[in-house]
Amino acid sequence: MKHIGIAAVTAEGAAITYKYICSASEQVFGKHTHPEISIHGFSFSEHMNFGPERLKKWQDLLVRSINKLEATGAQLVICPSNTPHEVYEQVCKKINIPWLNIADEVAKVAEQKQYKKILLLGTQFTFNSAVYPNAFEHLAAEIVIPTDEEQVLVHSLIVDELVSGVVSESAKQAMQGLLSKYAQQGVDSVILGCTELPLIIDEALTQLAILDSTKILGDAAIKAATN
Amino acid sequence: MKHIGIAAVTAEGAAITYKYICSASEQVFGKHTHPEISIHGFSFSEHMNFGPERLKKWQDLLVRSINKLEATGAQLVICPSNTPHEVYEQVCKKINIPWLNIADEVAKVAEQKQYKKILLLGTQFTFNSAVYPNAFEHLAAEIVIPTDEEQVLVHSLIVDELVSGVVSESAKQAMQGLLSKYAQQGVDSVILGCTELPLIIDEALTQLAILDSTKILGDAAIKAATN
Repeated sequence: MKHIGIAAVTAEGAAITYKYICSASEQVFGKHTHPEISIHGFSFSEHMNFGPERLKKWQDLLVRSINKLEATGAQLVICPSNTPHEVYEQVCKKINIPWLNIADEVAKVAEQKQYKKILLLGTQFTFNSAVYPNAFEHLAAEIVIPTDEEQVLVHSLIVDELVSGVVSESAKQAMQGLLSKYAQQGVDSVILGCTELPLIIDEALTQLAILDSTKILGDAAIKAATN
Repeated sequence: MKHIGIAAVTAEGAAITYKYICSASEQVFGKHTHPEISIHGFSFSEHMNFGPERLKKWQDLLVRSINKLEATGAQLVICPSNTPHEVYEQVCKKINIPWLNIADEVAKVAEQKQYKKILLLGTQFTFNSAVYPNAFEHLAAEIVIPTDEEQVLVHSLIVDELVSGVVSESAKQAMQGLLSKYAQQGVDSVILGCTELPLIIDEALTQLAILDSTKILGDAAIKAATN
């Protein structure tokens, strides 16, 4: 069983993924058994540098985190935050262990489930980046992006509340309204393209099929650790 | 700010402590700001070796975990599980960075709050070990240990449910009954001497003052990281 490294950007996202990997592993390896796991994270405030230097800064932080994880013996790495995958290719050139791309893993599941019209939710950076368009470009599925106003709403819910573990009833209602609107427009599924979104969106909240990037990434990491 | 290492025994315990440190740090350092943090854990099944070799095995696992954390740059380490502190002294002789002892930190708070008669809850190993008696030996406070039957109940709730993140209503009721009995016997406070117990015991469940070893350890780590 390979040693999994988790490059943490937010503690909430890393903790959810870490716990998910350990509990889902029990189904594969038996009670109380999971791969060896290391997590490393700088202060989240470091990643919040959203100025013109942000891509360079993110690359630097991720390379340093992944090198630290390698020093613990980690043989593969995941980053349970979607946004930083914007620098995936540049970082991969500078590290020595494989990094599983979260959007590629989501695309594999979407293809397998044959979803056709998929709503993407995430931070403003995920909406603006090529992370999901790149991962889905070889698929027939259409990716639907929320309106500018909705993007601002989703982004601020994530950054102001969810990353600090705050789950409010008003936020849930806002998300429910948004999902319902897109369901009426023929969308069949939604990508929770932010590790913290499962805190607020589940099967009880929407009729759309859910592509939970956190669980998909966790499952992919377990599979990669087993091979 | 010093880099904190977390030697994980259970994913639940480590994740709770990790999230607590990050959210509590915001009060000290400002929004989204926390110390650099590394976590390392072997499979929990490795720690479940409860045979005659367990003390030797625990020492070995903790020394290896702490060395891996040191390799990431961690400057101090905590272990958010009470039980393994049984080998605290032996491990400290074999590592290069300071390890904050969870029971010593709980004792400091108990002394400051002037609690007099304190119920200890934890796994069977914590009940049987000298971890808390040693930490409290210089204090006037009396440590009360549950009956043999109650010890078995608390231990199995932790090992069979809480470490896997399962919180049942029947378990809550059982704990409420136990705490109420000791409150009637003059106990003034309870040590949650197991990182997972806060999942099930909070102020709403009992009139006893709560010494939450997880939060106390997290606060101590933040303080140590700041000095």
